[in-house]
Amino acid sequence: MFDYLRDPQEIYRQSFTTIEAEADLARFPEELRSVAVRIIHACGMVEKGDLIAFGGDVVTAAIRSLQNGKPILCDAEMVRHGIIYRLLPQQNPVICTLNTDGNAERAAKLATTRSAAAIEDWADHIDGAIIAIGNAPTALFHLLEALISNRLAKPALIIGMPVGFVGAEESKEALIAHAGDIPFVTLRGRFGGSAVTAATLNALARLAS
Amino acid sequence: MFDYLRDPQEIYRQSFTTIEAEADLARFPEELRSVAVRIIHACGMVEKGDLIAFGGDVVTAAIRSLQNGKPILCDAEMVRHGIIYRLLPQQNPVICTLNTDGNAERAAKLATTRSAAAIEDWADHIDGAIIAIGNAPTALFHLLEALISNRLAKPALIIGMPVGFVGAEESKEALIAHAGDIPFVTLRGRFGGSAVTAATLNALARLAS
Repeated sequence: MFDYLRDPQEIYRQSFTTIEAEADLARFPEELRSVAVRIIHACGMVEKGDLIAFGGDVVTAAIRSLQNGKPILCDAEMVRHGIIYRLLPQQNPVICTLNTDGNAERAAKLATTRSAAAIEDWADHIDGAIIAIGNAPTALFHLLEALISNRLAKPALIIGMPVGFVGAEESKEALIAHAGDIPFVTLRGRFGGSAVTAATLNALARLAS
Repeated sequence: MFDYLRDPQEIYRQSFTTIEAEADLARFPEELRSVAVRIIHACGMVEKGDLIAFGGDVVTAAIRSLQNGKPILCDAEMVRHGIIYRLLPQQNPVICTLNTDGNAERAAKLATTRSAAAIEDWADHIDGAIIAIGNAPTALFHLLEALISNRLAKPALIIGMPVGFVGAEESKEALIAHAGDIPFVTLRGRFGGSAVTAATLNALARLAS
């Protein structure tokens, strides 16, 4: 009845052709281009490609972490459910501690959000892990504070793409300024979210498999 | 260490104050303004408010459906996991049939995507239900075809916000043109996604509780 493309492979092909025609991908190192394409694909906005910022050897860090079976630590259930498990090379655990017992009470005690308080439960998992923050600016700020004070071990990579009007832009600028030698990928400004965060992880997982 | 807002209620308050200051909300009927605010909040982009389109009595339809205990039918797991269950007034079922047994084979047989084929499993649930499509343009096209040909019963409301470069914009224009007497909310253009879709549903659920 409607004339539209139904073949999944052809939909992907035309999507990527459009993105390559419209987006400025030349500024990315070659190994990061597929990641940039997938971020743009997830949000339907080529102009957001200009806001992607990164530091360190993102792809090498991600591949090593995933192939070593390290976990992926997410700030939100939507991020966790955007990850395509079959792409993970070692059936890597995907962990979200937001809704664990006692987290709401801990957040109240720490006078912060549940998303930030949930990071306290990452201590046993974070060494060499991949962080995927796609919702809460407070989670990214809290993580950076814990890393700067050496209260948490170093993750392999931080994908930091929280979204919103209060703290999102600032938390991502803080990541860029304070990541130190930890590789990171982020998306400057207010836009971000679980879809672009999961798309980044999935793109890196494709490179690792 | 960093100076940032940690109090969840104050973060919400400042977010909504910013949105109300920056967005053009006057064009929405009063009962839809909180929905528009939540859509903008979910994506961090006030300019997307200008792309919100709707038809029919969205709020009344949503409240009635939710209070009658009707299900919410989602095209993607990320949409399902963005819905805040405690806001649903009747513990309404939230259903995603994308990964049901046999759906991949059915998609191959129908020569379409898995997202579109999954809608065939909505027959027993769709009468008076709320549809939440936040990923696949093919799912929205397939749904419209099934409704126009009276192959599926009428839902109470269609939230249609697929995302992407192939068919997303076109499927949403088709929704606007062919929804008939079914109330709908959509977001014109390529942008959409699970976060704005779930935010729309959650905003409507708040009005129903």
